[in-house]
Amino acid sequence: MAGVSKVAPTPLLKDELDIVIPTIRNLDFLEMWRPFFEQYHLIIVQDGDPSKVIKVPEGFDYELYNRNDINRILGPKASCISFKDSACRCFGYMVSKKKYIFTIDDDCFVAKDPSGKDINALEQHIKNLLTPSTPFFFNTLYDPYREGADFVRGYPFSLREGIPTAVSHGLWLNIPDYDAPTQLVKPLERNTRFVDAVLTIPKGTLFPMCGMNLAFNRELIGPAMYFGLMGDGQPIGRYDDMWAGWCMKVICDHLGLGVKTGLPYIWHSKASNPFVNLKKEYKGIYWQEELIPFFQSATLPKDCTTVQSCYIELSKQVKAKLGKVDDYFLKLADAMVTWVEAWDELNPSGEKSVEQNGVVVAK
Amino acid sequence: MAGVSKVAPTPLLKDELDIVIPTIRNLDFLEMWRPFFEQYHLIIVQDGDPSKVIKVPEGFDYELYNRNDINRILGPKASCISFKDSACRCFGYMVSKKKYIFTIDDDCFVAKDPSGKDINALEQHIKNLLTPSTPFFFNTLYDPYREGADFVRGYPFSLREGIPTAVSHGLWLNIPDYDAPTQLVKPLERNTRFVDAVLTIPKGTLFPMCGMNLAFNRELIGPAMYFGLMGDGQPIGRYDDMWAGWCMKVICDHLGLGVKTGLPYIWHSKASNPFVNLKKEYKGIYWQEELIPFFQSATLPKDCTTVQSCYIELSKQVKAKLGKVDDYFLKLADAMVTWVEAWDELNPSGEKSVEQNGVVVAK
Repeated sequence: MAGVSKVAPTPLLKDELDIVIPTIRNLDFLEMWRPFFEQYHLIIVQDGDPSKVIKVPEGFDYELYNRNDINRILGPKASCISFKDSACRCFGYMVSKKKYIFTIDDDCFVAKDPSGKDINALEQHIKNLLTPSTPFFFNTLYDPYREGADFVRGYPFSLREGIPTAVSHGLWLNIPDYDAPTQLVKPLERNTRFVDAVLTIPKGTLFPMCGMNLAFNRELIGPAMYFGLMGDGQPIGRYDDMWAGWCMKVICDHLGLGVKTGLPYIWHSKASNPFVNLKKEYKGIYWQEELIPFFQSATLPKDCTTVQSCYIELSKQVKAKLGKVDDYFLKLADAMVTWVEAWDELNPSGEKSVEQNGVVVAK
Repeated sequence: MAGVSKVAPTPLLKDELDIVIPTIRNLDFLEMWRPFFEQYHLIIVQDGDPSKVIKVPEGFDYELYNRNDINRILGPKASCISFKDSACRCFGYMVSKKKYIFTIDDDCFVAKDPSGKDINALEQHIKNLLTPSTPFFFNTLYDPYREGADFVRGYPFSLREGIPTAVSHGLWLNIPDYDAPTQLVKPLERNTRFVDAVLTIPKGTLFPMCGMNLAFNRELIGPAMYFGLMGDGQPIGRYDDMWAGWCMKVICDHLGLGVKTGLPYIWHSKASNPFVNLKKEYKGIYWQEELIPFFQSATLPKDCTTVQSCYIELSKQVKAKLGKVDDYFLKLADAMVTWVEAWDELNPSGEKSVEQNGVVVAK
């Protein structure tokens, strides 16, 4: 068409959002995301052998950290960042200086909506984060702030302003995010159902947060987004995002922050090996039976008004109550403290965040 | 096609489910539902002038109750059944002898799914009711019992059996179920979004239950499905289903029963008059600001193990705590007791229901 500029329009929050990608391989998957990611800054966290060179396609603006960089920047505190596990991605959250983070796995591609159109996952996450959440009462037409929707009859008017959204949890078409036992039992199952909804996870309800396609407001909840100790030298894996999700949700509920799930979908291309996964997961699968009651009953004192103070308090409760389950949780509780210390070192003004009526005012 | 029998296959739960329809007009709308409803028994509750003759299309198996019948059957207890308000529908729940109820408004028609196929709403409700609920932990791929879905990674295995489902709340395409203020502000808004999901409302979370397209297990939760005092001689209307929903949810949470919302959709044909609605609703709109905190904090004692005993206990709390809001709630609390007494009179074995491990064994 004549007169159409070749310059792409400036995308939403271009200068306020970093895309964090943990990887062990060349990032060819970015080619498919080029129209959606090219104008954003990428933070690549290279896992595994730091001498390996990760190729990033031309034209992307990025910074890359390998294990040597992490050790150099954090010194002894680098012990809180997992190695040989995608949990290392949380290092990227810490070094970012932006207000928002989107994190995605390198085996995730652009999904199509039912009309066949490419889904701009990042744009949907941003919409989710920039509109309020409604965790105190369920709206049967889902996100009331979406176009064509609203609060239904019987929804209290005093709750219609909502509260700030801290986290947007996106989903996956094709390979569902199943645990190893379910993978083994249903090797051929694919998620083909496009559910056209975004909804707030109600207050007091936990959910399994997957780190594959996730966005959050770093100023509101960043210090709670620690992905734990997984992978090399640790007794479990594949519970990094779950751990972060449970800690984060307890803290969001306490601080009056919202968590949404649903759209956007990405296309998850390949299933990980269920036998390898089973080895990583098996302790988690039975520990989890104690973790869930722990997080369901966890309460934080009123004087915990910052994410950092909530997180430190939670680490104490982990040590006191989950230490009995396994010594691993003593180590994890210490790592939680180290994480917050490292966060505050790299984000010196962050610790002064003040919570006011459910709105965390950073800096 | 040769060899194809003209006899329709027997539909699910044909002899275990009644369809309850409150109405003031001829039931021409049933023509559209004929393929889906014809083999079921209908209970029609005629509202308003009992001398008016309601025409029911040929071929339907039904019983019809007008105000004279209600007065005759319940005697002085008929005072708990609303007049000139669709809240009268709950009389139909009481006289049914079946295990399941589906109730639908007479301005609701068959909706089409995105492929253009007629939606068998009743069949979907039955699927919802016959599969368990999962109120203790949120599954991000929604109803895990649906074909092509399951519990995702991080969902505790001990919670995967679920609990019995008591209520299935269906939605509406076209005219959304908005309150009068929202109707006035958005007169042209239509719900066109088909969300292909069923989900359990988490434990501890309230929602606005709409009576337009609703199914439930009468044995599990019937005595809590009282639609209150609305319409003629009462200060409010249009809060009948909401009231039932809040009472029901508190009791389901206490007894370990599940509530699902989402599919199926019906086609809601015409918006009610927002000016008339505003008159009915306005007291409810401000009372509701006190009702929601009341229901959110309501707890029932452990020795309340039947729906009836829970409901009587709740009526006492309504009287004690909401009586201060308005005298109307004193009257409503008494009507709640009358309702349970009338229920037990018409369903003499029901009061012996015994609750065992979250499963109510009726009779």
